[in-house]
Amino acid sequence: MPTQFDPPSGTRDFLAREFETRERAFAVIRSVFSRYGFEPLATPAFERLDVLMGKYGEDGDKLIFKILRRGEHEGTGEADLALRYDMTVPLARVAAAYGSQLRVPYKRYALGPVWRADRPGRGRYREFTQCDVDTLGSASAMADAEVMCAVNDVLAALGVGDFRFLLNSRHVLAGLLEAFGVPADLGAGVLVTLDKLDKVTQDEVANELMERGLPADSATNLVDAMVADDAAERIRDALRSNEEGCAGLEEVDAVLSLLAGQLPAGRVAFSPAMVRGLSYYTGPIWEVSAEGVPGSLAGGGRYDHLIEQLGGPDVPATGGSLGVERLLMLLPPDGDGHSRLDVAVTVMGQRYAARSFALAAAARSAGLRASVYLGASGKLGRQLKWASDQGARWSLIYGGEEAQAGTVTVRDMTTGEQTPVPASGLADYLARLADAG
Amino acid sequence: MPTQFDPPSGTRDFLAREFETRERAFAVIRSVFSRYGFEPLATPAFERLDVLMGKYGEDGDKLIFKILRRGEHEGTGEADLALRYDMTVPLARVAAAYGSQLRVPYKRYALGPVWRADRPGRGRYREFTQCDVDTLGSASAMADAEVMCAVNDVLAALGVGDFRFLLNSRHVLAGLLEAFGVPADLGAGVLVTLDKLDKVTQDEVANELMERGLPADSATNLVDAMVADDAAERIRDALRSNEEGCAGLEEVDAVLSLLAGQLPAGRVAFSPAMVRGLSYYTGPIWEVSAEGVPGSLAGGGRYDHLIEQLGGPDVPATGGSLGVERLLMLLPPDGDGHSRLDVAVTVMGQRYAARSFALAAAARSAGLRASVYLGASGKLGRQLKWASDQGARWSLIYGGEEAQAGTVTVRDMTTGEQTPVPASGLADYLARLADAG
Repeated sequence: MPTQFDPPSGTRDFLAREFETRERAFAVIRSVFSRYGFEPLATPAFERLDVLMGKYGEDGDKLIFKILRRGEHEGTGEADLALRYDMTVPLARVAAAYGSQLRVPYKRYALGPVWRADRPGRGRYREFTQCDVDTLGSASAMADAEVMCAVNDVLAALGVGDFRFLLNSRHVLAGLLEAFGVPADLGAGVLVTLDKLDKVTQDEVANELMERGLPADSATNLVDAMVADDAAERIRDALRSNEEGCAGLEEVDAVLSLLAGQLPAGRVAFSPAMVRGLSYYTGPIWEVSAEGVPGSLAGGGRYDHLIEQLGGPDVPATGGSLGVERLLMLLPPDGDGHSRLDVAVTVMGQRYAARSFALAAAARSAGLRASVYLGASGKLGRQLKWASDQGARWSLIYGGEEAQAGTVTVRDMTTGEQTPVPASGLADYLARLADAG
Repeated sequence: MPTQFDPPSGTRDFLAREFETRERAFAVIRSVFSRYGFEPLATPAFERLDVLMGKYGEDGDKLIFKILRRGEHEGTGEADLALRYDMTVPLARVAAAYGSQLRVPYKRYALGPVWRADRPGRGRYREFTQCDVDTLGSASAMADAEVMCAVNDVLAALGVGDFRFLLNSRHVLAGLLEAFGVPADLGAGVLVTLDKLDKVTQDEVANELMERGLPADSATNLVDAMVADDAAERIRDALRSNEEGCAGLEEVDAVLSLLAGQLPAGRVAFSPAMVRGLSYYTGPIWEVSAEGVPGSLAGGGRYDHLIEQLGGPDVPATGGSLGVERLLMLLPPDGDGHSRLDVAVTVMGQRYAARSFALAAAARSAGLRASVYLGASGKLGRQLKWASDQGARWSLIYGGEEAQAGTVTVRDMTTGEQTPVPASGLADYLARLADAG
């Protein structure tokens, strides 16, 4: 039940363990992208309202969090800023603002939160992490293939098991519509319906195509070609019948041949029924699906005129987006999150406080994570309980006995074994513990 | 001149180089704090409006960025969310929400952006990074000293040169006021004036104290004691005359004795005139100043009742805040930001595209950052210019000649030396380059 202390609806607090699991995944993502020469870009959390509005369609615009004007204008209830909704519009603004300072091609990734006033639900948040990787300024199929390879490497490095790239092209889709005699005005709707072939039966798809106004024979021919055992060959044949289709096939084959040596066999397949919703794509498009995971783990494609439409320069562009939150749900739980400390230092009374404090510092100097006990109890048992709760591997004990003997007691928290170490040899001893850890 | 493509007023875009300089500093901060057993906490960018309002005083409230209600309520111009203004109020909310799940003491750091609708200016932003480190649930002076040690280690690790901790205590301030006969109702104002002793002349301070209603002899005595050569001793003597003063001295001395062995000599000094503006402090307070840097680089103190006042549980608490943006300005510029690639792979015509693409993958497999040329030029000179712009140390060239000879040409971009490497030995060769780099 939500309380007044919960974070706002659709947002999350990340305590240490979850935070670290996420950061580890983010570090993997950053490291793979930089190995490909993609550079990071960070833009502000908010943009001017007019930069964002009208860029996401009517439904998207409704999901934009708007920020009230400040000062004397606040009373008007007018907004002048808005939280970023994605990473693409800020990219277009950056390309417009710093064009000449950016390398060509500009290969960048952006990893960070975006905000959408969506209805919160299972796995759907109002604040969530998005990760985009894009190349501006290259028309080469190598740029498309490079993004896909990088995404492949990210998924593999994160330990995602059985995933697969579905590859298609906008030109293939246009060629298909032409080959099967779909009237131009029905094209967009037909594609939306075809995209359902992996979700509903083939009859249902054919019926929906007819409802959209497609003649019965066109509808069944189209569906048959898509689902036939020799679909790939039949579709290829059909595509060869027109120019768009040929261009599309060439595009798909160029990407496939670049990927052939780089991805494991079967990792990528030409998928002529894969549509991807967004209308701005202009060339190759792709999605990543994984066994047993609904929806896609990543997706992208070429969008050669979008940056200009969004206010940036007219540059060819291709890119992809990782479903970060979905990926994070697939990752194995982090086993190491429990341990906060390598060394816990007990404090056996005020008299020994400064010495205990110094012992913790000595352990840190040796490269170990260490802290003194900060509680009020003087009881050893209570303090060892704290040490154990911190996941400490060793405790250092210094009290009257040790003071007299000139030693520090090192307790192995796993075995309970206690070793008196001469104060003069402690630094070396700690260094050995650090090496052993 | 701002253009329509600039980020919103008071915010910044971080392109690769600046982003990486900042991230490197953040990594240092995280690493030091976790060596002390502080754990990370991340809260949402926005909180419910009522969680934030009324917590920062009237002036603070005015600087809060408010977010419009969504959906049908949007027309009312009413706000129900707001961007976080600091890390302390979210900490109090988290302490209230997850109390029983948090370790005791709860030692956490938070590093991330906060937003304030301040008038933007030199070094003053509306979106800026804040870093707080706090211990909830410990009344021990060791907790105060530990925060100071951690902040010291962060500044040292970042390479900040000549910095110094000013240490004081709220009890010292109260004891001082009592010892010099300052009426209770003048106390707060007198402290504000005393805080100026390092900025204006001693006469100006004395005059301002009299304007505030302090009798002339109290004012001069107080100022004299603060600036005398033997100020520390005179102040200590004065403090010993009353209970508050004694408690304050004890507090300061406890922290000083814990720090004595840990910080370099002269790094911390008892500074009885250091006030710190915020009224919520209840015990030791401290600031870090550095030679030639106006203002403070960090500051903090004990605030035993604040978490409860902010809606959290009643726990003793102490912490500090790093002036991250100010620190970043002090750091030496990053020399390494220019290089995006270790290996740049040329593409000598469409025919060799797949092979070149594979060469880049091979270089990445060897642990090198690598990419193929994605431009349209087939000219080697143009491509080598691109390689050099990327800061690549080596280029791999594969064209007709190499295809025939079964080699790859490796060009050292610094010397221009070119080495033909047999294709079969390339992986080993790349691995050696990676080791050498």
